[in-house]
Amino acid sequence: QGTRDNPPAHTALRDRLLAAVVTCFKRHGAAAIDTPVLELRETLMGKYGEQAKLIYELQDQGGELLALRYDLTVPFARYLAMNKITNIKRYHIAKVYRRDNPATTRGRYREFYQCDFDIAGQFDPMIPDAECLKIVHEILSDLQLGDFLIKVNDRRILNGVFAVCGIPESKFISTCSTIDKLDKMPWEEVRSEMVGEKGLSPEAADRIGEYVQLHGGLDLIERLLQDPKLSQNKLAKEGLGDMKLLFEYLTLFGIAGKISFDLSLARGLDYYTGVIYEAVLLQQENDHVEEPVSVGSVAGGGRYDGLVGMFDPKGRKVPCVGVSIGIERIFSILEERMKASGEKVRTTETQVLVATPHKHLLAARLKLISELWDAGIKAEMLYKKDPKLLKQLQYCEDTGIPLAAIVGEQELTDGVVKLRDVTTREEVRM
Amino acid sequence: QGTRDNPPAHTALRDRLLAAVVTCFKRHGAAAIDTPVLELRETLMGKYGEQAKLIYELQDQGGELLALRYDLTVPFARYLAMNKITNIKRYHIAKVYRRDNPATTRGRYREFYQCDFDIAGQFDPMIPDAECLKIVHEILSDLQLGDFLIKVNDRRILNGVFAVCGIPESKFISTCSTIDKLDKMPWEEVRSEMVGEKGLSPEAADRIGEYVQLHGGLDLIERLLQDPKLSQNKLAKEGLGDMKLLFEYLTLFGIAGKISFDLSLARGLDYYTGVIYEAVLLQQENDHVEEPVSVGSVAGGGRYDGLVGMFDPKGRKVPCVGVSIGIERIFSILEERMKASGEKVRTTETQVLVATPHKHLLAARLKLISELWDAGIKAEMLYKKDPKLLKQLQYCEDTGIPLAAIVGEQELTDGVVKLRDVTTREEVRM
Repeated sequence: QGTRDNPPAHTALRDRLLAAVVTCFKRHGAAAIDTPVLELRETLMGKYGEQAKLIYELQDQGGELLALRYDLTVPFARYLAMNKITNIKRYHIAKVYRRDNPATTRGRYREFYQCDFDIAGQFDPMIPDAECLKIVHEILSDLQLGDFLIKVNDRRILNGVFAVCGIPESKFISTCSTIDKLDKMPWEEVRSEMVGEKGLSPEAADRIGEYVQLHGGLDLIERLLQDPKLSQNKLAKEGLGDMKLLFEYLTLFGIAGKISFDLSLARGLDYYTGVIYEAVLLQQENDHVEEPVSVGSVAGGGRYDGLVGMFDPKGRKVPCVGVSIGIERIFSILEERMKASGEKVRTTETQVLVATPHKHLLAARLKLISELWDAGIKAEMLYKKDPKLLKQLQYCEDTGIPLAAIVGEQELTDGVVKLRDVTTREEVRM
Repeated sequence: QGTRDNPPAHTALRDRLLAAVVTCFKRHGAAAIDTPVLELRETLMGKYGEQAKLIYELQDQGGELLALRYDLTVPFARYLAMNKITNIKRYHIAKVYRRDNPATTRGRYREFYQCDFDIAGQFDPMIPDAECLKIVHEILSDLQLGDFLIKVNDRRILNGVFAVCGIPESKFISTCSTIDKLDKMPWEEVRSEMVGEKGLSPEAADRIGEYVQLHGGLDLIERLLQDPKLSQNKLAKEGLGDMKLLFEYLTLFGIAGKISFDLSLARGLDYYTGVIYEAVLLQQENDHVEEPVSVGSVAGGGRYDGLVGMFDPKGRKVPCVGVSIGIERIFSILEERMKASGEKVRTTETQVLVATPHKHLLAARLKLISELWDAGIKAEMLYKKDPKLLKQLQYCEDTGIPLAAIVGEQELTDGVVKLRDVTTREEVRM
């Protein structure tokens, strides 16, 4: 339940997507690592808050208590701490497991791929952070998914906002998770959840509302740096200073136009400590719509400077920043688009079918196909002793093989092969 | 326990190996499929005989009872039956799980990759079977693993031998598993296991011994086809006829020289119904050794015509033949070889490091690297505002980056870049 077999057409499209992502990760000098799908249960416990109940646990069959990994970030942090690695740029593409009741119709499953790129190490501020955003920009552009927007914020700015609005620190995280709903519900509903469920005062909620509905660019950062209350808060000031630096770097990268500093972005996970970001595709319903509609997040990430320290016996921290590409959502978008356009993915790459026009020529086919394979040519033949030529050509059309190499008695005598273009039906002897 | 993290150097070597295997599978026109790592427990039960105790089971957290896949063949058969597919050529490369106590020093782990290629469908005899052997031959040649031998046999021939030696049919499978030890122990020990543990008569064991110690080529097949006892057995005759056909096809493929018809090959799994094979690497201890020594199996497979029917409600059979490449063993062999030769794998593919010779040039680096990335060039820079040139060049040497693109004040003014070959130290302005 909640999983699926991936037939050739799915796998071919997914492999193409993954290849594009890997190409980008390698372009940025990342090395690949791989960790087991099994983790000790205790490694995963206390890292995912309430979501921990979605972790798949293995039966106790003697030995260690195990679970299936829930994401790739916690195993990465464990890997760094265990091996005392303080400096690495790595990517990891693998499946993770969540005992969820996901909307399988929208391409969400209990088993799904994550594509993570992370930079660990003590570096000058915002340089690796900016690179993560550049990567998101490159991948979404490469995949030609249409217009998109990358929202950025900083946990320190949010915490600063909460502080100057008079929220007690114990309510920061739960307020964050309410704020995070602003992309799905209007401010009025978010406000009433804050006051009703989270127990904030109406005045505090209104003060928060003034901030978290802001979004913009460098101008907004400058304005908030001048904000009489916020500029007095140390954390917020730090966050805003770094945000300004980030926009400088993004301008040098030529991508600031796609970035929106958005104070409503909060992100669910507890472990973020600095900049956070999320990319959304924009759907132009038609040319007359003024505001483009978001069709959901396709990438996200942020800075988590405390996670590795949780696995180190001495609590030594390794600052990390990373991004995860939402390949499954991108897959469903592309799949639907192909369905709509009637485009078909070829599931094989065969270049030529070795065929014979009449009986008793199996030996000739076997010899020829073997020569082609040895020359690195992708070739197939039908597994029949005496297949009809029509059937062989039909197989080419069905599977998209562009060429047929035909050997009959005459060709054998002349020492040639008849090469036929399946679409145009043109033939050359060679 | 029994699993490991794969650091960049491992992952880079494994990715290279897997790419070679995929290239071969695609050359033969196979499509990729992917199935979940989770299977229903009942799907796996009754398929692996005694080995079933090594299956990882998931905790009952409500809902279905699940287990981790034990191999890729049973999920493949389930996939065919569930989707009523009667005809496919597919490959599947993925990890499988066995709660074993494997010899991790020899590269065997509880989580390991399998690389499977299978052809399902009703075809003329031995044509797909011969292609599986051609694939093994191509992969082992491509990987330059040294000399190898592919042993072939047929379950029907073995069963025929057992029958004419007077073994009751109920003891065929257990006799098979004893025969399978002939590559690790001498005939005398195998014989005493047959008589002692398996309860065969000494005469029957001796009669079997005369057959299973035979190995050869077409000549041996012809000889056994004339064998007064064996030629009277229907199954053996069928198997020998097909074996002859197989050798004909392998001769046309030009690979018969590496194939040995070996009556001691039995293979452990119950589900094989026809031809079986196993590839072993041969180690020439030194030039004077007469018989080359086997260093273990690196590929294996065979025909299993009954497995899909076990998953079909009406028992409809789909004939299948396939091969599994033992990528983990090949990996350990290559890894040891590289250790011995001191060769290092590059873990990244970065072509150029963007560097600056003095301070206050971060903006220039960010602009240049962004241009390089956008042009598809694999480029890195150090995440420091003002790194020393020496440190930057040192980083190139440490990680194998061949080029450094250097921009200083002078280059900025002149609108050029200084491109430095890290090894030769030659520089060109461009």
